[in-house]
Amino acid sequence: MKKIGVAILGLGVVGGGTYRILTEHKEFYKTTQALDINVECVLEPNEARWRELGVPEEIVATNIAEIACDPDVNIVVECIGGVGTAREYVLDVLYGGKTVVTSNKELVAKYYHELERAAKRHSAGLYFEASCVGGVPIIRTLLDGVQSNRITSMMGIINGTTNYILTKMTEEGTSYAAALSEAQRLGYAEADPDADVEGYDAAYKLSVLSSLAFHTKIPYTKVLREGITGVTAEDIARGNALGYRLKLLAIAKQSEEGIEVRVHPAFVKKEHPLASVSGSYNAVFLTGDAVGDLMLYGRGAGDLPTGSAIVSDILYAASRIEPRYSTFKNNATPDKDTKFITDFESAYYMRLSVNDKTGVLSKIAAIFGKNNISILELLQTPDSDGATLVLVTHETHEAAIKNAVAKLNTSEIAKVEAVLRVVS
Amino acid sequence: MKKIGVAILGLGVVGGGTYRILTEHKEFYKTTQALDINVECVLEPNEARWRELGVPEEIVATNIAEIACDPDVNIVVECIGGVGTAREYVLDVLYGGKTVVTSNKELVAKYYHELERAAKRHSAGLYFEASCVGGVPIIRTLLDGVQSNRITSMMGIINGTTNYILTKMTEEGTSYAAALSEAQRLGYAEADPDADVEGYDAAYKLSVLSSLAFHTKIPYTKVLREGITGVTAEDIARGNALGYRLKLLAIAKQSEEGIEVRVHPAFVKKEHPLASVSGSYNAVFLTGDAVGDLMLYGRGAGDLPTGSAIVSDILYAASRIEPRYSTFKNNATPDKDTKFITDFESAYYMRLSVNDKTGVLSKIAAIFGKNNISILELLQTPDSDGATLVLVTHETHEAAIKNAVAKLNTSEIAKVEAVLRVVS
Repeated sequence: MKKIGVAILGLGVVGGGTYRILTEHKEFYKTTQALDINVECVLEPNEARWRELGVPEEIVATNIAEIACDPDVNIVVECIGGVGTAREYVLDVLYGGKTVVTSNKELVAKYYHELERAAKRHSAGLYFEASCVGGVPIIRTLLDGVQSNRITSMMGIINGTTNYILTKMTEEGTSYAAALSEAQRLGYAEADPDADVEGYDAAYKLSVLSSLAFHTKIPYTKVLREGITGVTAEDIARGNALGYRLKLLAIAKQSEEGIEVRVHPAFVKKEHPLASVSGSYNAVFLTGDAVGDLMLYGRGAGDLPTGSAIVSDILYAASRIEPRYSTFKNNATPDKDTKFITDFESAYYMRLSVNDKTGVLSKIAAIFGKNNISILELLQTPDSDGATLVLVTHETHEAAIKNAVAKLNTSEIAKVEAVLRVVS
Repeated sequence: MKKIGVAILGLGVVGGGTYRILTEHKEFYKTTQALDINVECVLEPNEARWRELGVPEEIVATNIAEIACDPDVNIVVECIGGVGTAREYVLDVLYGGKTVVTSNKELVAKYYHELERAAKRHSAGLYFEASCVGGVPIIRTLLDGVQSNRITSMMGIINGTTNYILTKMTEEGTSYAAALSEAQRLGYAEADPDADVEGYDAAYKLSVLSSLAFHTKIPYTKVLREGITGVTAEDIARGNALGYRLKLLAIAKQSEEGIEVRVHPAFVKKEHPLASVSGSYNAVFLTGDAVGDLMLYGRGAGDLPTGSAIVSDILYAASRIEPRYSTFKNNATPDKDTKFITDFESAYYMRLSVNDKTGVLSKIAAIFGKNNISILELLQTPDSDGATLVLVTHETHEAAIKNAVAKLNTSEIAKVEAVLRVVS
């Protein structure tokens, strides 16, 4: 039976989950995969942490060179995170000819090209299923499941923290701040939540997934990114009343005009499969020219779900002779001939406070009309000092919306309180 | 660039879709996969059909030996269906050392062992993603995406025809017969619909998927199979009113007690992700001990979706040096130590006509009580000659339900009009 030695760098949530899965399934992998997988080494400076996981002291390494030079280690799992130490260590072990399995979306989004070059030079493999959407095998699907297709679009809920917060705000009418605190209390959000709530995490993942899907270089810097910090419970509730659910969506589209990649909050119709993806669940909905619509749904984070993706990569790498490189492209800079669309089309939700006077509605309608924006739905409700107007437009250009908003805000008949995108 | 020659046996719906995808994406696969894929041969006795697809006459073969011996053919796609000619031809080309890609669930369910032996002996590959759930890469996922998990359960809507019929009956209140005619008119159901409506198609697929998921031999003959021919629009509507949707479910569970595999109509709560899988869409919902819940959703049939799975298998096989065999087991006979559970537990929906007399309800309740069946929901409505009682039980054994039904039917106070399973 083939023996495979594994080293794990970092025993945080994901590293710990990986350790548990590998040790608890050792006999299972012998039977089902004909692989004898041993954790030969871990690198974890926090003694309390490795003791808590029951890691035997003799396999705790003190530095990366020990692992890079260990002939018994074939595969190194990187769960450190960030692009400082993690990048250095990954390069060190690739130079040592070890195959790398990583869950680090930032590292893959920013430095894949460098890592792949090192891997190829030293005949090592490089796998990163766990970097995107936790346990959901979306990368394996793009590489080996729907690679026969031209993928035309991809739309996903790919950040669990923000989906938890938005679900909480939707179901309980909580404010953003209260939902964030609750997410932090439960460990779904970091003390510094910016990476999640400002959409960086989703943008890294979208860079990786869209580069794979479209077979071209899509740097994360090209992803239009808006977070959820400005979202109010009021708009969520008003959107709900119109039959929409608010989600932080990651969207990638490819057409003859070019590529658009964006991460922002958006309303989706409640009948859409993504609308019912709640809490910490994630999903990716993609469309290919042969397969049509396809959705993958599952846990986007957590020790065991993300560990599942890491260990599946380990088994995949261990059971093959030739290291396989993905068709993933260097995404440090895009190809010269790739056109990125920035003035994309979208439908919009808008909430306005209006003076409740005769003729106001016709003036507002005229402003929309002049900007070629047509209205799909409109709901006016009275309030203490005037009225609230909530409307959803047909698809239009962002520039047109910006013009209309500026015009409305200087009109003295209405004030635009909120603008959110609507996706069909 | 690697050149790969493909032959297609049978240009029906799926074979035709495969031909179209391969010819229309030829340049795309050169760029994205570094593979130059040519359709070298087709075997299709119906001249009108290959002419309709625009197949050049010079690549139309007249017999299987031509293909089995053609040095330019590396991969043979089998889209004939059935287990007569298809099995013979597949063995012929495997003996010729050609890798086989098939969409034939019956062939895989009944003869996988024989085919794999032939493939291994002649160093050929054997791929069958397209045999289950059309374009949804569920087999790739089981083999390479969640193979790190012990899969404990799998629940799927894996037959498009029956899902179309049940969706139609649910949404429009149509009778089974009317919905079937409509499905036949639209080409979703065959003139002889038994393979679909009696659950054979789903049983073959479940045999294949559960054998892969549980790493053991699960012959299709072990699948408890009940079709949808007895389902009435009345029960669908009454179930709906209680918050359930009726689906033809394929269910596989593995626990320490053993394995259960079954295909039958069942009510699912309308909040369950499978409840909203409508029309000809399919989905598989599985649970692993690390990944947790995972669902794949997409088109379960059709020329291009199923062709997508076939061509993805072709690209997978073509881009690898070593043929990979799945961990799929021979499923002609099960292993001696595999225990199959037949008296499984389930909740039940029941519809009874009752005499509307004092004390009747307590007598009925007593019969359930004596059989240790406890009631979760109950709804009594009056009708012309008595009342209709609709109820949903807690989980119980099938034997208990059978006893209760027999007792009720001989009690002269009630008649059991319908019994359907309910799945949580």
